[in-house]
Amino acid sequence: MIIVKIGGGDKINIEGTIKDLAKLDEKFIIVHGANALRDEIGEQLGKPKKTITSASGYSSVFSDKDALDVMMMAYSGLRNKRIVELCQQNNINAIGLTGLDGKLIQGKRNRGIRVKKDNKLKIVRDFSGKPRKANKKLLELLLNNGFVPVITVPIIDEKAFAINSENDNIVRVIHNEIRADKIIQLIEAPGFLDDLNDPSSLVEEICAKELDQRLEQVKGRMKRKILAIKKLFESAPTEVIITDGRIENPITNANGTVIR
Amino acid sequence: MIIVKIGGGDKINIEGTIKDLAKLDEKFIIVHGANALRDEIGEQLGKPKKTITSASGYSSVFSDKDALDVMMMAYSGLRNKRIVELCQQNNINAIGLTGLDGKLIQGKRNRGIRVKKDNKLKIVRDFSGKPRKANKKLLELLLNNGFVPVITVPIIDEKAFAINSENDNIVRVIHNEIRADKIIQLIEAPGFLDDLNDPSSLVEEICAKELDQRLEQVKGRMKRKILAIKKLFESAPTEVIITDGRIENPITNANGTVIR
Repeated sequence: MIIVKIGGGDKINIEGTIKDLAKLDEKFIIVHGANALRDEIGEQLGKPKKTITSASGYSSVFSDKDALDVMMMAYSGLRNKRIVELCQQNNINAIGLTGLDGKLIQGKRNRGIRVKKDNKLKIVRDFSGKPRKANKKLLELLLNNGFVPVITVPIIDEKAFAINSENDNIVRVIHNEIRADKIIQLIEAPGFLDDLNDPSSLVEEICAKELDQRLEQVKGRMKRKILAIKKLFESAPTEVIITDGRIENPITNANGTVIR
Repeated sequence: MIIVKIGGGDKINIEGTIKDLAKLDEKFIIVHGANALRDEIGEQLGKPKKTITSASGYSSVFSDKDALDVMMMAYSGLRNKRIVELCQQNNINAIGLTGLDGKLIQGKRNRGIRVKKDNKLKIVRDFSGKPRKANKKLLELLLNNGFVPVITVPIIDEKAFAINSENDNIVRVIHNEIRADKIIQLIEAPGFLDDLNDPSSLVEEICAKELDQRLEQVKGRMKRKILAIKKLFESAPTEVIITDGRIENPITNANGTVIR
């Protein structure tokens, strides 16, 4: 069993990835993003991405109702269904799902962010949270009947509200239930770079025990990714490949960073 | 087994419909539209609905790639996932699907429209077509495992392209496989009106044999709807209720036109 995570950057070769996946003998699940597409559609609709700064100075994306609407259009709608169409054209019997569908990815909504307004502290709550559990029964029902799940956000919270969540964490809760032998992550870089500004500084192999140390080396999205990968190994042993999604055959030519 | 078709007008009481459906003991499938939402998003994105006029003077919607993109955002994305969310909040374990997913609704793409351009006839082909078959195995797999399918466009053509199609015809191919006891259609009118301009002219009952005669009375969308209903009865006997989707309890208070 393989989990393939297709990043949401606009340079990822999605068509090449799907054609490549059609060559595999193993079963697989796709988890995909669409952040570049989401930003584009949000801008066009006059609903651009909002950020919020907490009282402690930490800045993060603010997922209000509008943001969830745009997410549903971009991730669950356009990107998910075009990937399913590509799969079907390549004889992959895909079913596109969000975490809402059949409560596939259940999470817990964040409690809120403390912000300072007019010199008063108040709590602002958005529709975001962390996945806690994947619906194993539904995943197995689909996989055992020959379907390939193509999964994206939103996920469902404890009161059945749609919430935003990190795809890296969604991969983790899926792995926790189905124990993937391999997890392939397609990103817009050759893999994990020793020096972020030097594409030739690819680290070919990282030992899972080494991840704590690597965490200190990185920041931003890559820090969240490495943290999520660290938790993957805490769930169950696997092999993670972080590799370039921009090349011609991103799966069969995967030659990025292997973490075991 | 009931099929509920939720029309795509912006006055349909979707929340009331879902709350009402939660009271049912019978199994059901939802098929929904989103045409008002699609038009709104299309306008905002600068991709308004296009029409094409054939050489013989017949005008129809032209579904190019842009139109399918907007359809995926509005129908498959925003509307479908918000309905699934509402279902989950009302303890209906919904799974939202398009006809692409697991080849749920298979159709045949239209061959093209003959248009006159610069005094020459040419064929223009879009992404539209007619549903031929529903995937009975997938529908039963979901229904037998306690899931409620929430279905919308696009559907999948013979070459696995996403194509636009009439929801009324999608209902027909589903009925053909699962033999619904009842089909409830929620529209923005009290039901079938003897006089289109007089809401008090509701026809309470129509005999299926009478449909041919009724066809001569109507035009536009209602003509297509009556034609589709006629074909429903040719597939298998059932009971169709065309009723007002704008009222408080559109399902338990359904009192529109019954066709048997």
